[in-house]
Amino acid sequence: MRRLYRNIDDGVDLVVFANSTEPHLDMTFMYATGLADGLFEGCAAFCHPDGGVEIATSALEEETATHAGLPLHVFRTRAEREGHLRKLLKGHRKIGLNHAEITHRTAQELRKFAPKATFVDISDAVMHTRLIKDEREIALLRRAAKIATDALAAVMPEVGPGDVESEIAARLVYAMQEKGATGASFHTIVGSGPNSAEPHYTAGPRKLREGDFVVIDFGARYKLYCSDVTRTFVVGKATAKQWDIYDTVRRAQAAAMRMMRPGVKARNVDTAARALIDATAYKGRFIHGLGHSVGLAVHDGGGLNQASDLVLRKNMVFTNEPGIYVPGFGGVRIEDDVLITGKGPRLLSTASRDLLEL
Amino acid sequence: MRRLYRNIDDGVDLVVFANSTEPHLDMTFMYATGLADGLFEGCAAFCHPDGGVEIATSALEEETATHAGLPLHVFRTRAEREGHLRKLLKGHRKIGLNHAEITHRTAQELRKFAPKATFVDISDAVMHTRLIKDEREIALLRRAAKIATDALAAVMPEVGPGDVESEIAARLVYAMQEKGATGASFHTIVGSGPNSAEPHYTAGPRKLREGDFVVIDFGARYKLYCSDVTRTFVVGKATAKQWDIYDTVRRAQAAAMRMMRPGVKARNVDTAARALIDATAYKGRFIHGLGHSVGLAVHDGGGLNQASDLVLRKNMVFTNEPGIYVPGFGGVRIEDDVLITGKGPRLLSTASRDLLEL
Repeated sequence: MRRLYRNIDDGVDLVVFANSTEPHLDMTFMYATGLADGLFEGCAAFCHPDGGVEIATSALEEETATHAGLPLHVFRTRAEREGHLRKLLKGHRKIGLNHAEITHRTAQELRKFAPKATFVDISDAVMHTRLIKDEREIALLRRAAKIATDALAAVMPEVGPGDVESEIAARLVYAMQEKGATGASFHTIVGSGPNSAEPHYTAGPRKLREGDFVVIDFGARYKLYCSDVTRTFVVGKATAKQWDIYDTVRRAQAAAMRMMRPGVKARNVDTAARALIDATAYKGRFIHGLGHSVGLAVHDGGGLNQASDLVLRKNMVFTNEPGIYVPGFGGVRIEDDVLITGKGPRLLSTASRDLLEL
Repeated sequence: MRRLYRNIDDGVDLVVFANSTEPHLDMTFMYATGLADGLFEGCAAFCHPDGGVEIATSALEEETATHAGLPLHVFRTRAEREGHLRKLLKGHRKIGLNHAEITHRTAQELRKFAPKATFVDISDAVMHTRLIKDEREIALLRRAAKIATDALAAVMPEVGPGDVESEIAARLVYAMQEKGATGASFHTIVGSGPNSAEPHYTAGPRKLREGDFVVIDFGARYKLYCSDVTRTFVVGKATAKQWDIYDTVRRAQAAAMRMMRPGVKARNVDTAARALIDATAYKGRFIHGLGHSVGLAVHDGGGLNQASDLVLRKNMVFTNEPGIYVPGFGGVRIEDDVLITGKGPRLLSTASRDLLEL
């Protein structure tokens, strides 16, 4: 929290991270309190410039909240909640909120409870603070990536033609949980055949057929930290066209990887992969940004894309995930989680990137 | 959407449901568009008083968005997105937003894009509209509840002392996906021993021991619709105290169930269960509301609790989930999904409510 305050404009004397109802929760509440379990709907963390944090929690999660070892303000009713929030906001003149992760309703509620205070958006500072991971966070991210890597290795040898997308997804999630994940970090994507051309398809009843591309995009959550990995397979023998698409994506990923060093502009990392793809027959078929920061959220803030103003720094972790999507035919995406270090990029996810024919 | 407009004050000539980055998505976007797959980050649905809906979508999800059969406005860049949003907002004078599910940042962005318009909060109307399920929704909720019921029946006979909480959770999620769920509707809770006293605990490395209460709170998502079911078990033979707690919760659930009829105040349903528990040695140990609406979200809006102004109506679906929590000792919760009909309450979840000794 002291690091957060260094990223904030002068004069802010309180920062509040306030949760609404699931899924409208701000993971920064967990970041600020150090809690690794619980939902904390309607709860809030009050963070002071000296690094001190207090929690307003419902009685429902009091037991869980005690694990933070921080001062608790427990409410049982809506009126008690309002009383605690008013009291904790009182006397503060410039209050920072995370506009990117607080609902409009909750932000308006806090303004009402502290009518004399000025409220400012600190979401940029939150993003920049969370972008730089400490050693503990890196260890958790590494573990989350290893769980995903190991789960894929356990599941894929058994996968073949006739298998159902959703069944493969279920097996992967089960394997990750067996290997210590608290769950999947997001809804597992298993897109086969034409479905592989939809980057945000999830998984359905379609059975794998000879000749399909199969895009598997998945990740583990380990003590709240996420991994996010994609591999693409071919059912049966890959055609020359499939080899060509796959190889193009793989070379684009490698080109971006070489740029993932401190001091490089995020935009230029994206360009490295995009320029390579756009110089081929698949120009314009890479229809999303190259990557995003990974942390407490799968999309943890900053991105590697053309609209980004970010500059890469040591101890950031990004996905590197170029893709080529041909509607009606299929798609390829290869995605790894990459730690930026002073000595260059380090892969957290280590599954083979060779094209596997199932 | 025409039903939504009937719940909104006069003069609103546009309603916008706008998503931010996952998990800050408004499920009402899916409700309004009829889409059942995809993320639609940064996308928005523009809903007109005549029931017409237009979608602003990123190219990333254009393919998925076409399944809605609605007019699409596809953007590839941030500038194109802004252009589409400005164009779609233009000329509208009173615009409704769902303050409960839009981020503060996105709400402020839309205000900036339509500086002459008045913006109003329509979250109450959204909640009241989504509370009443149509036949298709009831069929999906019934299916989601059946999947959960069947998964529990498949998994529990194999569970016993020494089993790890997180492993039981993984088996349940796998069984639900095998039975057709697109996934779990929320993070599965398996809390054993003292963990069962924390209503929002998830599942950890603890092994089941003789004498434990085990609270299992889980649900399936089927075509975006959720179930939410809890059963409590005892490892080995239940003690007299355990029977007493369990029986108290069961009677509280039955007392509430009898009240789940059209025209009854939500508050009074909660009171029926709470008064029963508070008349026993476990007074004050029922530390959360009795239930909540279930639909596209696990917590779909209205609640059965003391702060609720809601009146039950035909075709609403609520959880009925009283509990007793004794810190350090353990807890019991029994939860079912209940459809309100003109002929009384109908259970969507049908797993046995007898106390099972594992």
